[in-house]
Amino acid sequence: MNKEEIKVLLEGVKDNKINVQQALERLEDLPFKDLGFAKIDNHREIRVGYPEVIYCEGKTVDQVRDIIKFMLTKNNNILGTRANEEMYNAVKEICEEAEYNKLGRTIIIKKKEQPLTESYIAIVAAGTSDLPVVEEAFETAKILGNRVEKITDVGVAGIHRLFSRLDVIRGAKVVIAIAGMEGALASVIGGLVDKPVIAVPTSVGYGANFGGIAALLSMLNSCASGVSVVNIDNGFGAAYNASIINKL
Amino acid sequence: MNKEEIKVLLEGVKDNKINVQQALERLEDLPFKDLGFAKIDNHREIRVGYPEVIYCEGKTVDQVRDIIKFMLTKNNNILGTRANEEMYNAVKEICEEAEYNKLGRTIIIKKKEQPLTESYIAIVAAGTSDLPVVEEAFETAKILGNRVEKITDVGVAGIHRLFSRLDVIRGAKVVIAIAGMEGALASVIGGLVDKPVIAVPTSVGYGANFGGIAALLSMLNSCASGVSVVNIDNGFGAAYNASIINKL
Amino acid sequence: MNKEEIKVLLEGVKDNKINVQQALERLEDLPFKDLGFAKIDNHREIRVGYPEVIYCEGKTVDQVRDIIKFMLTKNNNILGTRANEEMYNAVKEICEEAEYNKLGRTIIIKKKEQPLTESYIAIVAAGTSDLPVVEEAFETAKILGNRVEKITDVGVAGIHRLFSRLDVIRGAKVVIAIAGMEGALASVIGGLVDKPVIAVPTSVGYGANFGGIAALLSMLNSCASGVSVVNIDNGFGAAYNASIINKL
Amino acid sequence: MNKEEIKVLLEGVKDNKINVQQALERLEDLPFKDLGFAKIDNHREIRVGYPEVIYCEGKTVDQVRDIIKFMLTKNNNILGTRANEEMYNAVKEICEEAEYNKLGRTIIIKKKEQPLTESYIAIVAAGTSDLPVVEEAFETAKILGNRVEKITDVGVAGIHRLFSRLDVIRGAKVVIAIAGMEGALASVIGGLVDKPVIAVPTSVGYGANFGGIAALLSMLNSCASGVSVVNIDNGFGAAYNASIINKL
Amino acid sequence: MNKEEIKVLLEGVKDNKINVQQALERLEDLPFKDLGFAKIDNHREIRVGYPEVIYCEGKTVDQVRDIIKFMLTKNNNILGTRANEEMYNAVKEICEEAEYNKLGRTIIIKKKEQPLTESYIAIVAAGTSDLPVVEEAFETAKILGNRVEKITDVGVAGIHRLFSRLDVIRGAKVVIAIAGMEGALASVIGGLVDKPVIAVPTSVGYGANFGGIAALLSMLNSCASGVSVVNIDNGFGAAYNASIINKL
Amino acid sequence: MNKEEIKVLLEGVKDNKINVQQALERLEDLPFKDLGFAKIDNHREIRVGYPEVIYCEGKTVDQVRDIIKFMLTKNNNILGTRANEEMYNAVKEICEEAEYNKLGRTIIIKKKEQPLTESYIAIVAAGTSDLPVVEEAFETAKILGNRVEKITDVGVAGIHRLFSRLDVIRGAKVVIAIAGMEGALASVIGGLVDKPVIAVPTSVGYGANFGGIAALLSMLNSCASGVSVVNIDNGFGAAYNASIINKL
Amino acid sequence: MNKEEIKVLLEGVKDNKINVQQALERLEDLPFKDLGFAKIDNHREIRVGYPEVIYCEGKTVDQVRDIIKFMLTKNNNILGTRANEEMYNAVKEICEEAEYNKLGRTIIIKKKEQPLTESYIAIVAAGTSDLPVVEEAFETAKILGNRVEKITDVGVAGIHRLFSRLDVIRGAKVVIAIAGMEGALASVIGGLVDKPVIAVPTSVGYGANFGGIAALLSMLNSCASGVSVVNIDNGFGAAYNASIINKL
Amino acid sequence: MNKEEIKVLLEGVKDNKINVQQALERLEDLPFKDLGFAKIDNHREIRVGYPEVIYCEGKTVDQVRDIIKFMLTKNNNILGTRANEEMYNAVKEICEEAEYNKLGRTIIIKKKEQPLTESYIAIVAAGTSDLPVVEEAFETAKILGNRVEKITDVGVAGIHRLFSRLDVIRGAKVVIAIAGMEGALASVIGGLVDKPVIAVPTSVGYGANFGGIAALLSMLNSCASGVSVVNIDNGFGAAYNASIINKL
Repeated sequence: MNKEEIKVLLEGVKDNKINVQQALERLEDLPFKDLGFAKIDNHREIRVGYPEVIYCEGKTVDQVRDIIKFMLTKNNNILGTRANEEMYNAVKEICEEAEYNKLGRTIIIKKKEQPLTESYIAIVAAGTSDLPVVEEAFETAKILGNRVEKITDVGVAGIHRLFSRLDVIRGAKVVIAIAGMEGALASVIGGLVDKPVIAVPTSVGYGANFGGIAALLSMLNSCASGVSVVNIDNGFGAAYNASIINKL
Repeated sequence: MNKEEIKVLLEGVKDNKINVQQALERLEDLPFKDLGFAKIDNHREIRVGYPEVIYCEGKTVDQVRDIIKFMLTKNNNILGTRANEEMYNAVKEICEEAEYNKLGRTIIIKKKEQPLTESYIAIVAAGTSDLPVVEEAFETAKILGNRVEKITDVGVAGIHRLFSRLDVIRGAKVVIAIAGMEGALASVIGGLVDKPVIAVPTSVGYGANFGGIAALLSMLNSCASGVSVVNIDNGFGAAYNASIINKL
Repeated sequence: MNKEEIKVLLEGVKDNKINVQQALERLEDLPFKDLGFAKIDNHREIRVGYPEVIYCEGKTVDQVRDIIKFMLTKNNNILGTRANEEMYNAVKEICEEAEYNKLGRTIIIKKKEQPLTESYIAIVAAGTSDLPVVEEAFETAKILGNRVEKITDVGVAGIHRLFSRLDVIRGAKVVIAIAGMEGALASVIGGLVDKPVIAVPTSVGYGANFGGIAALLSMLNSCASGVSVVNIDNGFGAAYNASIINKL
Repeated sequence: MNKEEIKVLLEGVKDNKINVQQALERLEDLPFKDLGFAKIDNHREIRVGYPEVIYCEGKTVDQVRDIIKFMLTKNNNILGTRANEEMYNAVKEICEEAEYNKLGRTIIIKKKEQPLTESYIAIVAAGTSDLPVVEEAFETAKILGNRVEKITDVGVAGIHRLFSRLDVIRGAKVVIAIAGMEGALASVIGGLVDKPVIAVPTSVGYGANFGGIAALLSMLNSCASGVSVVNIDNGFGAAYNASIINKL
Repeated sequence: MNKEEIKVLLEGVKDNKINVQQALERLEDLPFKDLGFAKIDNHREIRVGYPEVIYCEGKTVDQVRDIIKFMLTKNNNILGTRANEEMYNAVKEICEEAEYNKLGRTIIIKKKEQPLTESYIAIVAAGTSDLPVVEEAFETAKILGNRVEKITDVGVAGIHRLFSRLDVIRGAKVVIAIAGMEGALASVIGGLVDKPVIAVPTSVGYGANFGGIAALLSMLNSCASGVSVVNIDNGFGAAYNASIINKL
Repeated sequence: MNKEEIKVLLEGVKDNKINVQQALERLEDLPFKDLGFAKIDNHREIRVGYPEVIYCEGKTVDQVRDIIKFMLTKNNNILGTRANEEMYNAVKEICEEAEYNKLGRTIIIKKKEQPLTESYIAIVAAGTSDLPVVEEAFETAKILGNRVEKITDVGVAGIHRLFSRLDVIRGAKVVIAIAGMEGALASVIGGLVDKPVIAVPTSVGYGANFGGIAALLSMLNSCASGVSVVNIDNGFGAAYNASIINKL
Repeated sequence: MNKEEIKVLLEGVKDNKINVQQALERLEDLPFKDLGFAKIDNHREIRVGYPEVIYCEGKTVDQVRDIIKFMLTKNNNILGTRANEEMYNAVKEICEEAEYNKLGRTIIIKKKEQPLTESYIAIVAAGTSDLPVVEEAFETAKILGNRVEKITDVGVAGIHRLFSRLDVIRGAKVVIAIAGMEGALASVIGGLVDKPVIAVPTSVGYGANFGGIAALLSMLNSCASGVSVVNIDNGFGAAYNASIINKL
Repeated sequence: MNKEEIKVLLEGVKDNKINVQQALERLEDLPFKDLGFAKIDNHREIRVGYPEVIYCEGKTVDQVRDIIKFMLTKNNNILGTRANEEMYNAVKEICEEAEYNKLGRTIIIKKKEQPLTESYIAIVAAGTSDLPVVEEAFETAKILGNRVEKITDVGVAGIHRLFSRLDVIRGAKVVIAIAGMEGALASVIGGLVDKPVIAVPTSVGYGANFGGIAALLSMLNSCASGVSVVNIDNGFGAAYNASIINKL
């Protein structure tokens, strides 16, 4: 409700076209509407083509099933992340279409078809152990309506493998670089493409890897300029971010 | 040089239109050209409208002046970051147009006018102590040819200040959120806009701030989904990143 | 035993009303009484309306049952924290009234009714995964005799949810702000209310969250001035603290 | 502006007592007023008896003087923290009443007398090296209108010194416990009083003290229940917090 | 073999009492004997009254049993630390006298009676959760032949409990102070006694305790001068150390 | 394919000895060959005498078996590291010759005999708990074709044990020093030999060992000059490294 | 004032030899005396032969001089630690006998001669850069009345240097082992002597030394059993500790 | 002195060719000689062609000059590392031939010419800011008698620069890879060459670089197998290590 609309409302009151009670009701919820909070609502609730998201870790199987049951009433696409198989089975019982990506630990429920973007997101990963994060990013990007290309097992220890896929990577509108251990992949890609690179450190490694800190610090200190970073193993966040950029 | 071009070359050799020596010369530097390294070269060297960048910290005054002297021969725009006043004075002696942003510690030499983007980058910062990072980001974004809006002193301790500028922030194509201390600004903005948010933790704070770690961790763990992060105090990197996105 | 009482005692000795041996015995335990240690005793033992507290983690089921068995002899309210279900079952066998809060992992035994405070403690939490800490704080505050208001799922990623409950939060005498991930909730609340805010970082999160360090540092560095912090996941401590303040 | 007031306004419009333009103007800034943001404004700006606060660290001498110059126009009490002597001298030039606490690095400008609280804040500190933090807390508490008692040099290495001042500490409404090194003072006091204890770790120490981390962790893990913690060396924050509690 | 003995040997050779081959054999292993390595051997192997020690953690049940089987052939006292019950059962099968301290996780096999020291070691601990470390220290000190006094549950949160046992603590020749959480006990004891205090941080605690780091740092930074520290949960090391001192 | 060979190829085309299509095919994969990528290929794939390596941790039993099944088709030696017994059993089913080193968690499949080096690698370890790392290094070094000497249980707490094996250590061409706890072994060996010493910190220890950080930092800070370090518990990496040096 | 003395006092009152007022006065300060606090007083204040200690770091030159001026009135030996040369000069002006150890940064004022212990403390150090800590320990041990032997530059990189001094080290009653970098010296000595070893990590080193953390962790994890540790660079604490043990 | 020599000695005694006193003298210093300590001596002292090394940091100008003065008497080559210009000037006064590498902070005094190795060490560095470490490694390698190739400014952000120098790198017998920021260079080189790679993390960077920790962790976690690591900025150690390998 913008300034002009309030003016019209007041004139309606003045001219007795609208009674005081009605005007009051419309003005009462004004702070939320006017401050643009509606947008937030939309942003985090249901917009056409946007899935509802539930982060399942730390929730009980019952909680996950109940939340999704409620979500189903809105007839929207649904994305559950960090879900284990038991959760999936419980969801499957109340929703036939539910699909599970075991590696990525995602539950997908597709209620509506969504047109894909023309431009695509390239998801590039260093090793096979990074696949869980790759799959989480992949499912997220797809349910958000993006075309995606996966390029995996192209770690810098065998850099020719990366080069042989460079064209696909450079063709993307935005690149997600996923790597554990020393996370050098992000810097190398950052130096080879001129697209935004969202780096995802993974917890793959051991010892002085400290559960992904090595890769995280590596990516934050990348000598290549176009790299930004999300949390360790945060495939969802990277894909969400990439999707916003891909749709700009 | 793609497959087709090589074929044409070979046929030229076969048909004696091209002699062996010439063909050899063209094939010899093929790896670099073909692998697309030329793009990298361009990326890091001189393209129309792109400045040359020099990171001055850890260099002597003489080194900075000499490097810029060499850069000047290419008649390109130049951006020096993390430069102190003494460096600026030395550069000023060899180049009249050099401008210094004292807060942002940047040296700018503008040799060519550059058309600005229509969309703009919003640089949002929590407190006045974050201004050095704001200014570094600002100068970087400008010399890269972006329209920029600065919204400063809108930290979450007085959240109404942020709300009063929300329209400007939401109007941007990409948002840079700069904050020290607990860095909560990034999460709050991430929840209020649906544009990519690049968060820059600053080293502003003391004690358990640990030179910016508090804000860095805060931003990496943002409960809002569209936030990615660059290194502490890395205004340059954030703006470079934002510029790539703004020009997509 | 104050100065005057000692004087009376000495005069009793002088006047042969008290013999030396009796006086000696009374003076012997004087240090504890006089230094006010009795207060400490009361503080940590049984005062009307104060529960006895047992921290169950790291104890065996047998130990927990035996300690509570002993406590029951004093006919006091009892609060067991960090108790698992097995512990509860063992306690239930020896005490019918024992109640278990599964989420909060608390055992409550209410032997005496207690008048509630007029002012209330607001327990505000960011996400549903913070509920275990919320419940621990809630049970602690209640058994200590406080009125409590719970406001949950108001994390800063959807800040309008927080604003819609602001009146209840501002009406409290003291606020407990519970949040994991980046813990920004504490700063935002600290900027919106002028009551003491006790922040509880939770271990909710993953990766660079480091089991709650991100939220802990965030809260310690809060840009809002009225915020103090307790240990990660320490719902009990926050509520104990809030109770002292609420009863001032 | 509450529901009733909006109703009255609308009826005024309806009855032509207020014209549309005037009503529009009053409604326009309604979000801020209604959401209670005015309170925040007051909270952070000028209320009777509340000082304006400026954190001087990281600002230039000119900036500090200019900000205080502007503050002086509002005729309010002013507190500058983390100010060096040069800053003070610059302020002194534009304001005769400015006083400097060299140890506490505070600048105080008292424009209005303020009634002191009846209850008092006890500021208890372990060693003489903690005095800068003590003084910052002391000046903050005083300018906020609190009665204060300072008890210093009562570290646990000579615990009898602490006991000899226990009465004064127990008489306070809220206690600030300041200690560096291992910060054990907070736990000992927390076990001896039943008032809220706000612990301030200081950076006093060396080696494995890590600039105050030892004391910080010690205080966060206090085995005594009524202790909450603020940032390392944050005397201002502790006193601000204590003042809110003292005035409840 | 000292200088004098070598001289005698050489004279024996000179006088043909010892033939060259025999002398050669005796001199061959001279480096070890002469450098005092024999002492080390003794130190780590069998001396009258000293137990053989086996650190069981990380070993298989079979390995523990086999090593102890071998040790039994030397007819010496044996101390197994960090042993689980399964290990104990396996040892019990081959040695009737084996005793298990479940809390302290020690296996004791006493083959020889040993006279106890006159002076005693005081083992002082903060809470009941520290008991495993107390018991490990206790069993170690006893099998090494020391008189020991245990004083437990005297944490600083109820400091009067500590004072009521002060005489026993002060009567010791060396004090072991065991505490988790914030570890303040070590500093308080260090300030109250003038005997060597060996502090043992325990991993008791949660959150910002970081598995004992809080107590460790606290103890290393103790403001009391006579405190030295061993590794987290290292009851064995503390008792071994204390035993050396107690027998000086 | 070097310059000369390309020239010959082009002349072949010119002289119609080679048709365009054939030349095209040979040139097409030139970038990889010419840039020396073939070496990398060889390096990471199959060279005579080099095993194929599979890091099994984080892979499922099925994945490990399938990958090894594929590797078997190349008739090469195979080394699986960080493999559990279940993985081994699955592999055993498809390959009779598979051998399992339970301590070292390696699977070895030897398809070809390989001549051993004349010089040897000395693998020196501090304690029996370091044996898993010793065995991983040992199996790696052997399958890579090296002669190896194992010297274990020579930790610095009983330094004479180390000295008694010094000749064997000094006879090696390269030394691997494996130690947990404080990792002092690497420095002592580094001071005693003039061969390259590759230090492997192990995660053996507890408390302030932090899973091997103590030993890692110790080794990185070694006061002896010829010591370099690999990741915690990285027996494979140390042996791979040592093998390269041993074969120089 | 012990039980017997109180009895005598009471009998004096009974027999009218002491009037009530006098008895009251004597009993009034009884808590301190009786609880043994007098010992603490003595411990931290003036006992025959014990110096008064002042930790100078973080104090101004004026403060140091004034405190020592006051100490001088008690005619006792004085030890100032972490004192710079300017402090010494100021002290020299008010006290001729003041001596300065530039390396150890100690000020010594010897007012009374003190008999030395027969047994001695061995101060053993790895490198020449550890000398400041050596000297602080040395001056502390001497002023506390101990015989001391210094054995320096015997780091483990050249372990024969250590062995050549082993007799002197083994002859001591207690050993202080001082080392920076990887701090291996403590473990090696701990394995070679059967006396209490107090290890002092120093901040000597760079990079991954982290200001002494490497040596600190190394010493805390020492594989030798008789080693306890004090704070980084804490030569004073080690010597104070050693002195207590040496005088047992 | 080997077994045979002792036998000869004993026979000399037997045959009265050598008297007991002479034999005793020769046998007395036998431990050092026999245990091979002489090698250590040589190793750390003067061997033909080996320089004497002095680590100057933390020493005074006087100390550095005096130590080198003493070293000069042995007429050997000398290497001073971490030396500032003032130290150099002082050394220059007593030794004309002293040369200073300002970037590398090394003092070189060449008393003897030394034949260079045929094989060479490749020193590869990422950026110009890494040059101080490059120069320290370079001077160390040269004075130790190695041929060296420097390849600088080949960081992975512009990976084609690295490839254009790959032949030189691959031609080396051992490679030193020096990089700050994210240190990805080591992994990339490790994947491209099959020579031992000694990685040196540098402290170049800021923010979450933590003085070189980012690069250090990155290198320790390298996904390429032939990489070992030395301390941050330890150019000397890397070169010393490389020299041992280069001379194998």
